[in-house]
Amino acid sequence: MEQYFVNSTITSDQFRLDDREQYKHIITVLRHQVGDELFFVDEHSDLFHATLAEIEPGQAIFDVEKSDKPTTELPVQVTIACSLSKKDKVEWITQKSTELGATKIIFFNSRYSIMQWKNNVVEKKLQRLQEIAKNAAQQSKRRVIPTVSFMKKFDDLTKLDDEVKLVAYEESAKQGETSKLHQVLTHNQTGSIVGVFGPEGGFSPEEVDTLVTNGYSSIGLGPRILRAETAPMYLLSVISYNYELRMNEE
Amino acid sequence: MEQYFVNSTITSDQFRLDDREQYKHIITVLRHQVGDELFFVDEHSDLFHATLAEIEPGQAIFDVEKSDKPTTELPVQVTIACSLSKKDKVEWITQKSTELGATKIIFFNSRYSIMQWKNNVVEKKLQRLQEIAKNAAQQSKRRVIPTVSFMKKFDDLTKLDDEVKLVAYEESAKQGETSKLHQVLTHNQTGSIVGVFGPEGGFSPEEVDTLVTNGYSSIGLGPRILRAETAPMYLLSVISYNYELRMNEE
Repeated sequence: MEQYFVNSTITSDQFRLDDREQYKHIITVLRHQVGDELFFVDEHSDLFHATLAEIEPGQAIFDVEKSDKPTTELPVQVTIACSLSKKDKVEWITQKSTELGATKIIFFNSRYSIMQWKNNVVEKKLQRLQEIAKNAAQQSKRRVIPTVSFMKKFDDLTKLDDEVKLVAYEESAKQGETSKLHQVLTHNQTGSIVGVFGPEGGFSPEEVDTLVTNGYSSIGLGPRILRAETAPMYLLSVISYNYELRMNEE
Repeated sequence: MEQYFVNSTITSDQFRLDDREQYKHIITVLRHQVGDELFFVDEHSDLFHATLAEIEPGQAIFDVEKSDKPTTELPVQVTIACSLSKKDKVEWITQKSTELGATKIIFFNSRYSIMQWKNNVVEKKLQRLQEIAKNAAQQSKRRVIPTVSFMKKFDDLTKLDDEVKLVAYEESAKQGETSKLHQVLTHNQTGSIVGVFGPEGGFSPEEVDTLVTNGYSSIGLGPRILRAETAPMYLLSVISYNYELRMNEE
């Protein structure tokens, strides 16, 4: 069943959908009829089962009931921070990180970034990425839309206050670093994790130093060289496995 | 350093590169000079450190030395079998599955596949995908190029003889199945794994029944709905984590 995020708080047993875009999509494009069912997530991340009760020009009235389905959110907050890359990769990272459960997605400038965002395009780029995140969150049935933001200064990564701070570094993998990630995930049962990922050309050693001296652990993600957009998916998959599929076993 | 697969066995301390495409790429396009270094993987999956010694028209001579770098191959053989999908998704699954370590990649027809391959295009499609796998294997520094194949009959999936056979099934995830994957990976320390993934529209219950009665375990990959192309990446990442990053800890 489809799911939509609405920009309001659903309090009663009826919900009046009057957002122009959503009305157009649900009623005009998908031609939903009275009696059709779907889900709404309101601005408090609550899920409601909704039945279309009445269609009027420009608004649709739904009978709603709060759902008791278990949450689809990761039990830890995960921030994925990636160096700027080409448009399609940035969009792809946003879509896939959303599907895989990230709470925040940050793009940042680094020394070997192959792209730069000029000041005057940042807002438009972020708007588009935020829309991609919203659609992916709806499709994957999440309760939260990740926020997408831009960090102009690399050094601001040192100001993030997540409990676990990781930087994926090829040189760590090359030196055979194979146990840090598992150690960190095993000993951190709650809280928040940030994973920082470099550009195709990698981080400069100075950049990694800056992160490591500010509380980041440098981790390897296995012996194969992963592309810049693949590494964050690896981390998110492993975090999901660790916190969502292994808990019963520990 | 770049890595190339060569279609021959390197036996002596010199290697004569006369493959037309590779010569063109390495000498004409990249303009490598005498003294430049790179890696070759020969048809026995052996890695050689190579130094360009001499350039002649149409052939290049390299001094080679067998490398003692540890393998980059997963300690288990993993087959990724995906329902046919649009061209860009099929290509993307091939590239990413290669990066993440799959040994075989199979595309198959299933009831709700959104694409079909006509008999007369199969060979051409597979050639193109095999080329993508080769390039991704070179880029990710693998020793093996995964084979890409096509399975016309869904039921042939039941003939695969991998020790662990998994089918990712949305309904399993919906019913809260959260421990099977971990159980299976924990108890299988060697051997081979096949993961089967449905199309965007999912498998029919009959298809899942067919697999399950033929030795497949139906597994959930967490509470979020993953797209058809994301689920195989999840499985491969988790397999890498389990076999390559956790071994020291168990």
